[in-house]
Amino acid sequence: MADSPSERTQVHRHPERGSYDRELIHRVLDEALICHVAWTDPDAGPRLLPTIHARVGDTLYVHGSRAGRPWRALRDGANVCIAATIVDGLVLARSAFSHSMNYRSVVVFGRAREVTDPDELQAAARAITSHVAPGRENDARMPTDEEFRQTLLLAIPLEEASAKIRTGPPIDHEPDVALPIWAGVLPLETVHGSPEPSPDLADGIAVPGYVADYRRPGIDH
Amino acid sequence: MADSPSERTQVHRHPERGSYDRELIHRVLDEALICHVAWTDPDAGPRLLPTIHARVGDTLYVHGSRAGRPWRALRDGANVCIAATIVDGLVLARSAFSHSMNYRSVVVFGRAREVTDPDELQAAARAITSHVAPGRENDARMPTDEEFRQTLLLAIPLEEASAKIRTGPPIDHEPDVALPIWAGVLPLETVHGSPEPSPDLADGIAVPGYVADYRRPGIDH
Repeated sequence: MADSPSERTQVHRHPERGSYDRELIHRVLDEALICHVAWTDPDAGPRLLPTIHARVGDTLYVHGSRAGRPWRALRDGANVCIAATIVDGLVLARSAFSHSMNYRSVVVFGRAREVTDPDELQAAARAITSHVAPGRENDARMPTDEEFRQTLLLAIPLEEASAKIRTGPPIDHEPDVALPIWAGVLPLETVHGSPEPSPDLADGIAVPGYVADYRRPGIDH
Repeated sequence: MADSPSERTQVHRHPERGSYDRELIHRVLDEALICHVAWTDPDAGPRLLPTIHARVGDTLYVHGSRAGRPWRALRDGANVCIAATIVDGLVLARSAFSHSMNYRSVVVFGRAREVTDPDELQAAARAITSHVAPGRENDARMPTDEEFRQTLLLAIPLEEASAKIRTGPPIDHEPDVALPIWAGVLPLETVHGSPEPSPDLADGIAVPGYVADYRRPGIDH
C-alpha cells in the first residue's frame, strides 16, 4: 500500500486534514463498526449499502448473501468506493457557516475480488466476527461449507485509500469571535448498554467478558 | 412522496425488514447525524462522501463548499444515492453465519437540484444547523450573502426512498440453539460527553441548555 495519494484518493478540500498514512487508515477501518459501499449499477446508477467490514493486513473484506442482487453486481471486479466514518464531536462555532464536525474517515477505491480460497474464507470469517466483537471469533460457531457457499465474500485491496481527520475547537472568522454566543465542541461517543440475553438462551450460560466489557478493536480505553 | 417502492427502492433482501412509510423514513433521516452520498464520476467511477444533511418536509438537503470538486459534479442534476444508517445493537448469534445488527437505515435515490432561492437557502441553513444541534439555529449567526455564495446547497426530493429496520434477538438455526454459546443483543447508543468550551470563548458565556442536554432530533428520551 502506497503512503502517497493516487489521483482519486488525493484530498483536495482541506488538504491539511488528509492523510495517506497506512497505520492511521488501518486504525480508522478497525474502529469503525460499519462502512458504506458504493458502486455504479449500469441500469440504476449509483448504489449504496451500509455493511459490516473487516480488515486483514492490507485487504478489506465485505460480505453479503449470494442471493442478494447488489453483491452479485460487485462480484465481477466492479469498481467500488467504500467509506468508513467515525464522528467524534460536534464543532459549534458562533457562525452557522463555520460549524463543523470532528471526525475520522477513510475512503477506499478499488475493484472487488470474489474470495473462493477456503483458507482465505476461514480467515475472513474470523476477522469479520472479531471486527464486530473482538473475542467472539473464539466463541461463535464458524461457518460450514454450505454457509460459505451461501455467502459472497469480497476482498478490496487497500491500495487506493485516504484518511481525513478533523480535531480541535471551532475556528470562527475574526469578527465573529466577539459575538456573545457559546462556542466549543460537544464530544460524541458510541457506548454499549446492558447485554440482552436471547429469549431462547439456555440457563447457566454467562455473559462473556468480551460482551460485558465490549470495546471496539483498536480502542485502548 | 409515494408510500410504495419504486424499482430502485424495492427492498429485495429480507423484504420483511423493508418499509416505504413516510414517517418512518423521516424519523430515521432526522435522527441520523450524518449520511453518505454516492454518485458516479464519469472519469473516476463511483464516489462516496460522508456529510451532514437535513430534512425539510419531503426534501433532503446536503451542502458543501462550492470550491469542492465533488459537490460541483452533483450540481447539474446528477443521479445520487444517499444512505443514513443508525446502528442500534450487535446481534450475537451462536453461529457466525447468523450474526447480524439491529439497525435503522434509509436509502434515497434521486437527482440533486442546486438551491438558489434566497428563502429556501435561509430555511435550509436553519434546518441544517438545527439538525446538528436542535436549538442552535436560534443562537448561531446565520450565513451572510457572501457565505451563501461560497456554499453549494443541494436538494434531493424524497420521492424514491426506503427504510430498512432490524430489531430483536438473534435467530439461530435450530441445531445451533443448543450450543453452549452465549447469544443475545448488545445495544449500542451514541452519547455526548462534557461540552468543551472554545479556548477563545469570552468569560461569562454559559453552556446553552441544548448543548448541555443534547438530544438528536426526533428522540424523546
